[in-house]
Amino acid sequence: MKQLLLLAAAPLLLAAQASEPPATPGEIVAATADEDWRPIAADNLLVMTLGDGSEVFIELAASFAPIHVANIRRLAREGWYDGITINRVQDNYVVQWGDATQSKAVPIGIETEPPAEYDFAMGDTYLAAFTNVQDGNYEQYSGYLGGWPVGHSPREDGQRSGTLVHCYGMVGVGRGNDPDTGNGAELYTVIGHAPRHLDRNISLVGRIVEGIGALSSLPRGTGPLGFYEEESQRVPIASIALASALPEAEQPRFEVMRTNSDAFRAYVDARANRTGWFVRPARAVDVCNVNLPIRRVRGG
Amino acid sequence: MKQLLLLAAAPLLLAAQASEPPATPGEIVAATADEDWRPIAADNLLVMTLGDGSEVFIELAASFAPIHVANIRRLAREGWYDGITINRVQDNYVVQWGDATQSKAVPIGIETEPPAEYDFAMGDTYLAAFTNVQDGNYEQYSGYLGGWPVGHSPREDGQRSGTLVHCYGMVGVGRGNDPDTGNGAELYTVIGHAPRHLDRNISLVGRIVEGIGALSSLPRGTGPLGFYEEESQRVPIASIALASALPEAEQPRFEVMRTNSDAFRAYVDARANRTGWFVRPARAVDVCNVNLPIRRVRGG
Repeated sequence: MKQLLLLAAAPLLLAAQASEPPATPGEIVAATADEDWRPIAADNLLVMTLGDGSEVFIELAASFAPIHVANIRRLAREGWYDGITINRVQDNYVVQWGDATQSKAVPIGIETEPPAEYDFAMGDTYLAAFTNVQDGNYEQYSGYLGGWPVGHSPREDGQRSGTLVHCYGMVGVGRGNDPDTGNGAELYTVIGHAPRHLDRNISLVGRIVEGIGALSSLPRGTGPLGFYEEESQRVPIASIALASALPEAEQPRFEVMRTNSDAFRAYVDARANRTGWFVRPARAVDVCNVNLPIRRVRGG
Repeated sequence: MKQLLLLAAAPLLLAAQASEPPATPGEIVAATADEDWRPIAADNLLVMTLGDGSEVFIELAASFAPIHVANIRRLAREGWYDGITINRVQDNYVVQWGDATQSKAVPIGIETEPPAEYDFAMGDTYLAAFTNVQDGNYEQYSGYLGGWPVGHSPREDGQRSGTLVHCYGMVGVGRGNDPDTGNGAELYTVIGHAPRHLDRNISLVGRIVEGIGALSSLPRGTGPLGFYEEESQRVPIASIALASALPEAEQPRFEVMRTNSDAFRAYVDARANRTGWFVRPARAVDVCNVNLPIRRVRGG
């Protein structure tokens, strides 16, 4: 990986005077062009509004979990999520929300037993668009694909298999002990060190792009697995709506740095080789410590 | 690493019937003997009491950062920390506390410019006691030593160098932009994915063994780097005292699983090879996803 990172940094080094310090991650982001960013489509953006008015914005990973995402879009359009609650806050692990009564019927058209979308074939097109960040552990390679943290490894049949990675802020679909996959009515997000043992065991469907502090700062549940023990402790969710369901002029807009751009590769290299305050650069960066740049380009 | 883990599991596999499922991490902890645990000395345990009465317990890494820990003990004994505040809560990064006025004089005897304790020689005794968990990235090996997350790598002079690792809940000494090391008056803890780029750049001095939820659930600061913008937002710390300063009968007592024990190696292996709910075990575990077992053996 270190070689890849050094190669990626070459354009930057050429641009700078030899005696100037290398650009910092923030300087690289500030110097990006518009084409270094991709917009988040309004149909891939959920706006979650808590009972206190706090807003949490979630990008859906439609390319990686299309069937689960279709379920989630339908649940959002039908208003199914409105009035559910946050029921679990386990420190250094997850915040989870859903229907605490387990009795609310899902709308017609929901795939009640969707197929597993835990991983996907890592074909040539995906390999070409993949930016490696880290080798070994969990997966042979871990990096970014289409703006998402992805690991990929060879499988027994000789094909390569990819999976989304459980980084901080990723959103997944809760499931029971049976190896069903969950229908998208019960969701969680990661609020701690990446629990990568969940990769390939549960469907990741998105990530929080803004507002996670409203979830990660909730009181921890004192029951087993961090579930709230009292009904009164549950945190109300006023609504979860698709941005595409809002009037066009009111739709919040976000952009994600393109992860197969030279700018992103330079950014990753700068994250691995921090300067200024740092005494000794790490010369490496964990896939979940990249801090992928995401920016809001219009208010909601 | 995978081979090491499989070897470590051998005693367990021998003990179980071939047809029985392997022991879970919880079952392994439940089956430990007293000698699989080491007590935390009262002089290595800080009791932090917030203004609302919440308690946070911090184990000091006296073996790895003796000069900084001596400073911290002195500051605690003199009551210096009493009345300071939590001034910074940056999501997925750190909670930081200290004297927001930057004007409170430290007691006589504090090393105002302690030497860097960012890393240490990894000699034969340490190597023999080290349990490897993970290879590559950041450090050649990452694992546990004396109950602490440690990485070690060869250095240019041919010696091996070790460092404590910035896992969730680790406690370090804040420092300014100058490469001084901080005197222990300003402390922080990690509340997100391990920021391992801080390893070897700042002195880690301990970890939270109980009560981190009182810190990780604090409102996020809205200023740069997550600092609170208003004085009224700062969270009061009533006191930070050494457990050894309490009457003996009131001292809380904790024990840490011995990390060079067969029980710990079996536990790590079981964490890497989860069963039950899991569809596909990860066959690996990050050093910061081990969840080292720590137990309270007496109330405070």
